[in-house]
Amino acid sequence: MKQRCVHWQSLRDLCQALLEAEKMPEADAFICADNLVDADLSGVESHGVSRLGNYLKRLKTQVVACENRVRVVEEHAASLAIDGGNSMGMVVGTTSMHKCIEKARVSGSCFATAMNSNHYGMASYYVAMAAEAGMIGITGSNAPPNLAPWGSPQKYMGTNPIAFSAPTGGRPIILDMAPSVVAMGKIILAAKLGKSIPDGWVLDPDGKPTTDPVVGQHGTLVPIGGPKGSGLAIFGEILSGVLSGSNWGPHINHFWNDFENPQNVGHYFLAIDINKFIPYASFLDRITQMVDELKALPKSPGTKEIYLPGEIELLTKEKRKAHGIELPLSVYLELTELAERYQIAFEIDR
Amino acid sequence: MKQRCVHWQSLRDLCQALLEAEKMPEADAFICADNLVDADLSGVESHGVSRLGNYLKRLKTQVVACENRVRVVEEHAASLAIDGGNSMGMVVGTTSMHKCIEKARVSGSCFATAMNSNHYGMASYYVAMAAEAGMIGITGSNAPPNLAPWGSPQKYMGTNPIAFSAPTGGRPIILDMAPSVVAMGKIILAAKLGKSIPDGWVLDPDGKPTTDPVVGQHGTLVPIGGPKGSGLAIFGEILSGVLSGSNWGPHINHFWNDFENPQNVGHYFLAIDINKFIPYASFLDRITQMVDELKALPKSPGTKEIYLPGEIELLTKEKRKAHGIELPLSVYLELTELAERYQIAFEIDR
Repeated sequence: MKQRCVHWQSLRDLCQALLEAEKMPEADAFICADNLVDADLSGVESHGVSRLGNYLKRLKTQVVACENRVRVVEEHAASLAIDGGNSMGMVVGTTSMHKCIEKARVSGSCFATAMNSNHYGMASYYVAMAAEAGMIGITGSNAPPNLAPWGSPQKYMGTNPIAFSAPTGGRPIILDMAPSVVAMGKIILAAKLGKSIPDGWVLDPDGKPTTDPVVGQHGTLVPIGGPKGSGLAIFGEILSGVLSGSNWGPHINHFWNDFENPQNVGHYFLAIDINKFIPYASFLDRITQMVDELKALPKSPGTKEIYLPGEIELLTKEKRKAHGIELPLSVYLELTELAERYQIAFEIDR
Repeated sequence: MKQRCVHWQSLRDLCQALLEAEKMPEADAFICADNLVDADLSGVESHGVSRLGNYLKRLKTQVVACENRVRVVEEHAASLAIDGGNSMGMVVGTTSMHKCIEKARVSGSCFATAMNSNHYGMASYYVAMAAEAGMIGITGSNAPPNLAPWGSPQKYMGTNPIAFSAPTGGRPIILDMAPSVVAMGKIILAAKLGKSIPDGWVLDPDGKPTTDPVVGQHGTLVPIGGPKGSGLAIFGEILSGVLSGSNWGPHINHFWNDFENPQNVGHYFLAIDINKFIPYASFLDRITQMVDELKALPKSPGTKEIYLPGEIELLTKEKRKAHGIELPLSVYLELTELAERYQIAFEIDR
């Protein structure tokens, strides 16, 4: 048995209880738990409950604040300069996007920056909040360095995600992308498995292309479209870091192995109230027409269906909500161990 | 002599006079002329004065309105729903970004959509306006279809540009990118020259990779990062088209050969007033530090200098402002011919 099937709500309850055991307030612990389980539901396991042990350690060592210290530093009709106060990134992210949506409802749109934050999980989580509210959402974050600017072999920018959402009446369209061709996790996995990797994924520490993941894991990720992805990552640093007042690029502290220095990452958020631009019903009609047209296009050889951005993740979520999440045994055992250590009941079927 | 050196202001004067001869008001003709010449100054000749003949024909046939019909349909503290009234795209773009900047100065940020517009030239032109005003600017547009959604061989989305800017105290940082690996112009040029093209630029009409530009010019451009670039192009259609009320994707009429049906393209604009998020002087210090750090990084083999997004274009502009623009003889002769036809003096040295 290599996997264990768990009900998503049981998983969320466990995560929440564990985070509360590390002194997080109930509402904030719920936000973090919901964010992590949302990643596992969506098939984005890299951002899911496998990270919980690390988050608990970060809370215990107080490199992250357990309480909610998010505060608005400066506010105008369509701007929010937010200080996350080194709270958990998901709390900073959810609070920031929530406030953006509220202000956009009045002003038509609102842009927010957040400084003094931490890894905020899947960016798609925040733009989904906007779509749910009948708005277009955009967000991005910076992260510890993994990408070099075009022309250099040295890491400087993070694999800074950027996410967009739009409601459709049916499933929202959600694009959540990094500016690199692949994630560093794929290089590390190939190195572990002793497999070679395709050309164009990673550059070696001298900046030359390599298909050897053992060498590549010490190099830099190839940005999509060369200077284009490099430029997107640089603007991720400008919006999330330089503008917000947080750290950027090589000044960001690591998430996995640094329990002394707060990360001080930054994020940005934009909410656009559709109804202030076009009647909402008309927007839904128009985007539904676009979705229908896209889905009905002829398919390339080997393609069974044309998927909209985020559609595969939402389909996975629907399946896993109905049938449970298959956790890898190692992750399941880590959670069981955490539950025992913190003396919390873990019922896998709700 | 294959080229003719022309002073940029002489070129702009000529363009303006020709556009005025087609009944454009003086201020609007200046905007269009400045936009076109800015492209030639920046080395982006594809968007420069070589297009003027087409623009004049569009004005003459009235497929584009010569007068300025731009009007705000709905306005809130941080939103502008603009109807371009089928005016020239550069007039719609400049007016929209100008209004965005004004409102962002009060509200902290402002997002605008424009419908019923036309090809608006280089996207970088509008974000440069924001940087000039001490703001971060973002803009995008849709365009006639050239990209297929990931999984289909059929064109649906435009090579929708997206542009970002940030001031630095020195040269602004300006990223202006299409979501495709290369522009269709490169495929067409290779076909003309009988050269093969690298794998990964274009797909044939069945959706299969090809290195034959003759086949490829009838296919679709490869998006950067596969589904990522495809997703960016789709959000270009959502923001520029679906939200603004304009046409999108395959419903957009062509620029080069359709003189009966208005294009009805759409654009979007975002201005963010830096000073509402962080003191402006502090932003300049921080971004200058970032630029200095990036420029000082070690260089990859074959790289002489690490360039920031837009830096090469700005350096080219400085050179060409000082030493003149070398126009290809064919473009120079077309302009001379237009000058004669409209009986306008064309002094190549101001």
